[in-house]
Amino acid sequence: MENFSFYNPTKILFGKGVISELGLSLKKYGKKVLFVYGQGSIKQNGIYQQVVSELNQNKIEFVEFSGIRPNPIIEDVYEAITLGKLEKVDVILAVGGGSVIDSAKMIASGIPVTEDVWNYFTETSTPSKTLPLLTILTLAATGSEMNSFAVIQNNNTLQKIGFGHPLLFPKESFLDPEYTFSVSKHQTACGIADIIAHCLEYWFGNGSSPLIDAFIISIIHEIKEISIPLLNDLKNYDLRSRMLLASTLSLNGVTSMGKTSADWGAHNIGHSLSVMYDISHGESLSIVYPAWLKTIPKQNDERLILFSKYLFIAPTIEESISSFETFLKDIGLSINLSQLDLLSEEKPNIIHRLIINNTNGLKYEINNEDITNITCKML
Amino acid sequence: MENFSFYNPTKILFGKGVISELGLSLKKYGKKVLFVYGQGSIKQNGIYQQVVSELNQNKIEFVEFSGIRPNPIIEDVYEAITLGKLEKVDVILAVGGGSVIDSAKMIASGIPVTEDVWNYFTETSTPSKTLPLLTILTLAATGSEMNSFAVIQNNNTLQKIGFGHPLLFPKESFLDPEYTFSVSKHQTACGIADIIAHCLEYWFGNGSSPLIDAFIISIIHEIKEISIPLLNDLKNYDLRSRMLLASTLSLNGVTSMGKTSADWGAHNIGHSLSVMYDISHGESLSIVYPAWLKTIPKQNDERLILFSKYLFIAPTIEESISSFETFLKDIGLSINLSQLDLLSEEKPNIIHRLIINNTNGLKYEINNEDITNITCKML
Repeated sequence: MENFSFYNPTKILFGKGVISELGLSLKKYGKKVLFVYGQGSIKQNGIYQQVVSELNQNKIEFVEFSGIRPNPIIEDVYEAITLGKLEKVDVILAVGGGSVIDSAKMIASGIPVTEDVWNYFTETSTPSKTLPLLTILTLAATGSEMNSFAVIQNNNTLQKIGFGHPLLFPKESFLDPEYTFSVSKHQTACGIADIIAHCLEYWFGNGSSPLIDAFIISIIHEIKEISIPLLNDLKNYDLRSRMLLASTLSLNGVTSMGKTSADWGAHNIGHSLSVMYDISHGESLSIVYPAWLKTIPKQNDERLILFSKYLFIAPTIEESISSFETFLKDIGLSINLSQLDLLSEEKPNIIHRLIINNTNGLKYEINNEDITNITCKML
Repeated sequence: MENFSFYNPTKILFGKGVISELGLSLKKYGKKVLFVYGQGSIKQNGIYQQVVSELNQNKIEFVEFSGIRPNPIIEDVYEAITLGKLEKVDVILAVGGGSVIDSAKMIASGIPVTEDVWNYFTETSTPSKTLPLLTILTLAATGSEMNSFAVIQNNNTLQKIGFGHPLLFPKESFLDPEYTFSVSKHQTACGIADIIAHCLEYWFGNGSSPLIDAFIISIIHEIKEISIPLLNDLKNYDLRSRMLLASTLSLNGVTSMGKTSADWGAHNIGHSLSVMYDISHGESLSIVYPAWLKTIPKQNDERLILFSKYLFIAPTIEESISSFETFLKDIGLSINLSQLDLLSEEKPNIIHRLIINNTNGLKYEINNEDITNITCKML
């Protein structure tokens, strides 16, 4: 087992009706709230009204910032920071999925400083303080509600980068499975792909930690067990709660205990695809992962052998990857880019872009030839 | 799944040599340290010298309080509180196992107030503040290094009671598997019994949480896999680190996610036995648990059926309990009180004492007749 440190101070309030504790929680952290949300779905499903009612009942002053996109962009973060400074807010409330929460983390980091928060992503600076952040989750997928990571897209530089810092942990996150009832079948499937991807990142990371491997196996099997029943019964409380818990546990740090690193190679390629074609994050992972698995060295690779022994169980690695593809198709996701009707001349552009954004320092290093192979397998 | 909340802000530094970060950590929290430890084993195995050297190198002022007993008593806690107040310490460093860390939690709670901390155990008062606590673990067993619980014995009232409060979380805990190398074979086995007991408490608690059940199964199987090899090779780094991680994860709150309660019925009986006969905590659990399992209602009890299906796997519940007993004997622990050479007239006294200390409100309520049955099975 490798040396590691673990720290996760986020308080989770999980279950039906936990929003009734929101007012009390917010008052612990500030007097004026910046209420951040996405493109309005919370107004259709009634969550917006419940949040506003809870804020009003507790006489909490707030201003709203809405319009965060599914692939969140830094321009929206800048705009919200400007509003937050102007309005002198002292606590952030994010209501949404990973895109809203990730944006809110950076908004919370930007309001109390003069620094450009994009510098944190490019590693030219690190945060020194943040405003307290509380979140209400409406989509089980990214795990952002209980971690210190944010992923934001920059359309000027055509980058989508992840960044992590202990100051980014939300103070409290409210996880009501009923708040995920209105997530569409497709978006639920995308969430499932994201959860599995997080598990695979740590599965294919460096370091040996048998108990944590067993936890990862448990999460993958839990997800496999609930996926089809949930997709056929989207308002099933028990299945929604099981997906929500699996999602939070797949990226809150527990699955990295005893490991030195995760392998984010496939995930990063997914981010690049999202920037280029606005493919939803979960579906981009569904497209990339099988191609990535087929490309990394297979011969005697212990983690791939264990993948076929414990995760997508099959006699050979090839059949195991195929079983993973079948699972992704069964939940309604694409496993290649065929739906984009790409012209043949676009292929070199995709390869070029993926090579530019490729990251090093992973367990399975991906060179330019690998990128070309992965792209061919995704088309 | 049941509503739950989860909060655990303790930072874990895990691995070989992590003590080199101790000085920096302590300086974040205070200027004068109360260094709390047990009955001197840390002087024999060299840990004391390493801690003192780290404190001196970082020019950190400290006073020592030693002599905490394996079954820690409130009188020692009072004495350390008096010393800490006199010396105006502002941070506590606990070096030891659960008994030292539990005591240190109460010492940290007692120094900044005038309240008698025993009132917290009897629920006549709750803590309002504590001093920051850092811990260096030397024994994998209780999980105290990453939870908010403390168990202390009161020889005046003949009680051994557990108490939990969010203020009791250590700020940081240093978990170096090498620091557990000198734990004896017997004490290592006791730690194993304690870890399994913690798993069983949540296994037999209220509420259904399938993923967490899978985590508990994983911990039990991890412990079963490493126990005999570790007991035959006490300085094996990999096995010690696996035991340490399993121990921390078995009582840091993760195994209670989605459940409303654990069942501490057997654990509490173990505490009573420790008070009466100074049996080590782990061995008391080894004696109580099989008797408890044989006494709680077996017919169609789902959790017992699943116990035999997934934990100590056997075709029937009876054979499964028997397999658990075999495991405990194989690791060298007693499964009854025969070693005490009890006189026949002591039996009613044991029953009387267990009945007095019996706690209600558990999933499996234990009445006076059950206590009598359990006692007969333990003799």
